Amino acid sequence: MPRLTPFDVGEEKIDYDKLMREFGTQPISQVAKLPSAPAFKRGIVFSHRDFDKFLTAARTGKKVSILTGFNASGSIHLGHKQTFDTVIALQKELNVPVYIPITDDEAYVTGKIDSLEEGLKNARLIAAQMIALGFDMSKTRIFIHQLYPQIYNLGVKLSKKCTLSEIKAIYGFTDSTNAGLMFYPCMQAADIILPQDLLGKHIVLVPIGIDQDPHVRLARDLADRSGYVKPAAIHFKYFSGMSGGPKMSKSKPGSTIFLDEDPDKAAKYCMSAFTGGRATVEEQKRLGGEPDKCVVFEYLGAHFMDDKELKELESKCRGGKIMCGECKKLLASRCKQFLIDFQAKVKKAEKEVDKYLLK
Amino acid sequence: MPRLTPFDVGEEKIDYDKLMREFGTQPISQVAKLPSAPAFKRGIVFSHRDFDKFLTAARTGKKVSILTGFNASGSIHLGHKQTFDTVIALQKELNVPVYIPITDDEAYVTGKIDSLEEGLKNARLIAAQMIALGFDMSKTRIFIHQLYPQIYNLGVKLSKKCTLSEIKAIYGFTDSTNAGLMFYPCMQAADIILPQDLLGKHIVLVPIGIDQDPHVRLARDLADRSGYVKPAAIHFKYFSGMSGGPKMSKSKPGSTIFLDEDPDKAAKYCMSAFTGGRATVEEQKRLGGEPDKCVVFEYLGAHFMDDKELKELESKCRGGKIMCGECKKLLASRCKQFLIDFQAKVKKAEKEVDKYLLK
Repeated sequence: MPRLTPFDVGEEKIDYDKLMREFGTQPISQVAKLPSAPAFKRGIVFSHRDFDKFLTAARTGKKVSILTGFNASGSIHLGHKQTFDTVIALQKELNVPVYIPITDDEAYVTGKIDSLEEGLKNARLIAAQMIALGFDMSKTRIFIHQLYPQIYNLGVKLSKKCTLSEIKAIYGFTDSTNAGLMFYPCMQAADIILPQDLLGKHIVLVPIGIDQDPHVRLARDLADRSGYVKPAAIHFKYFSGMSGGPKMSKSKPGSTIFLDEDPDKAAKYCMSAFTGGRATVEEQKRLGGEPDKCVVFEYLGAHFMDDKELKELESKCRGGKIMCGECKKLLASRCKQFLIDFQAKVKKAEKEVDKYLLK
Repeated sequence: MPRLTPFDVGEEKIDYDKLMREFGTQPISQVAKLPSAPAFKRGIVFSHRDFDKFLTAARTGKKVSILTGFNASGSIHLGHKQTFDTVIALQKELNVPVYIPITDDEAYVTGKIDSLEEGLKNARLIAAQMIALGFDMSKTRIFIHQLYPQIYNLGVKLSKKCTLSEIKAIYGFTDSTNAGLMFYPCMQAADIILPQDLLGKHIVLVPIGIDQDPHVRLARDLADRSGYVKPAAIHFKYFSGMSGGPKMSKSKPGSTIFLDEDPDKAAKYCMSAFTGGRATVEEQKRLGGEPDKCVVFEYLGAHFMDDKELKELESKCRGGKIMCGECKKLLASRCKQFLIDFQAKVKKAEKEVDKYLLK
């Protein structure tokens, strides 16, 4: 398997057990009394660092917080939504403050956007999307790096505790890396540690894709070297792209559904999603479909069906009682309706962004 | 001669002609109609980049500015005062805005101070000292990095235009350099370019010790790559330490006079300064002293005498009409009185600092 870094996720299928061994994380199944969010039950959250300690602290009334950020390369998509929905469920169940850094500097130094102005525009859209997703905004604060440059002071404080060698080893950077990207991991560590500066020392939980774990490892080390509590993490499996692989990108229209997509176009993309269907209708009726290979099933389950409805669909599919076209139509119509409603909420939320920004 | 970088100045005597050849700067003597500040007449400013263009722009009513910064390792000393006095004279003669970055982050990542809190304390002292030195505060603004973290946004913008290789080559950094120090040159370039963001594009003059020229070279390159006007520079010779060499440091009491020094102690240090005196009084009377080798003469000329008085002293010294003890006493008494007056001004200025900070 190729090296996995936060800035370079390949097309290949991911071996999650191997990743846990390589990264030295723990399987989530070993944690007692998991929260009720679907991502835990369904194995989407598969691994963690110190999540047991975080849960115990939260459930015994100790101070905790959740930090879940986003780079400002553009709108969030359904894959991100799954993570944020889980955070929203955790926030509700455990009654914890959430901090959301939006890293326009990251999008710029990684080359995902061409200017910081573009980053700021994206960041404001993302902030509105976060509000529209349903975070409890009485307990949630967003900070956009360009508008909260104070984060640099904490980045500098931490940066003295790590060398170029260390950053190169973690991220696979070389001497031809630009200086901003090289420094950026210190800023990311600062994001993760910031809630401790704001609220006093405590365990900060970072829910992330496993590819982002290097950021958490560095933040844990730097926290330790600088007198902070080590942050905890839960790791999400990759959300599949519409064609089945883990790679989703703005530059490949239809590779997933971005939440600012035109609802009709999104419905079209749903109609050409990869399914677990058999070669012929006859085979499908005889053998049944394979929902565990099916992107349409994954998308429906993650966003548009509750457990009961999903179970019924699974059983119909395996029993050859429903054809792929029907499922695609269901996904297309629910997705379209969701986008229409969501985009209206975002439009409203755009006016409220400043109210919830750290400044 | 050893490699000269902004973070590593040796004890050795400096060969200024060789430095100009190595750095590719121009001798100041080639610039027509030099300003009237003593540092130009006396060869203290010996080299430049585009100073002729800066002067022409300033004298034809075009927008220009001066950028002169300081790292927050502690109080300024008489060597720095000479540079700032020259900037003040330039500001007066040419009627230009001056921007003064105080880089507490630099002092921290270079290891000159142990915490950013210490940096902020030093920065506020330095800001008060700047005001007390006599800048025209109606045209001068100070920015302390911790209190003006917006400068990070410009640092990030520039950082994408240079690689680790380039920074390593300019500064002599290695993979064991900490990440903050590695990024810091982008912040310094941002300081130098900031006036163009604030006032529109123009030539910014950076008056600096020649050891700081790498910062200017990088800023010139990054300005060029990012659509700004290249900054100009004038280069100052090293100010001698009290014992004659160029190395002055807080950790060597008496190696120079820091402007927050106890006035009586400072007077004592003056009494043990290196002079250009002969081995015996008889020889001194017969051969005369050597003012061009004499630190006491240098200090008196730079800070405590006008041209006329200095010329008279030189002639008395060369003629064997004045002994070193007398000159030392003169320096001690003038230095002591200056510090008493200056420190009173600083105390007053401390209350005004916030008024002049960029925020």
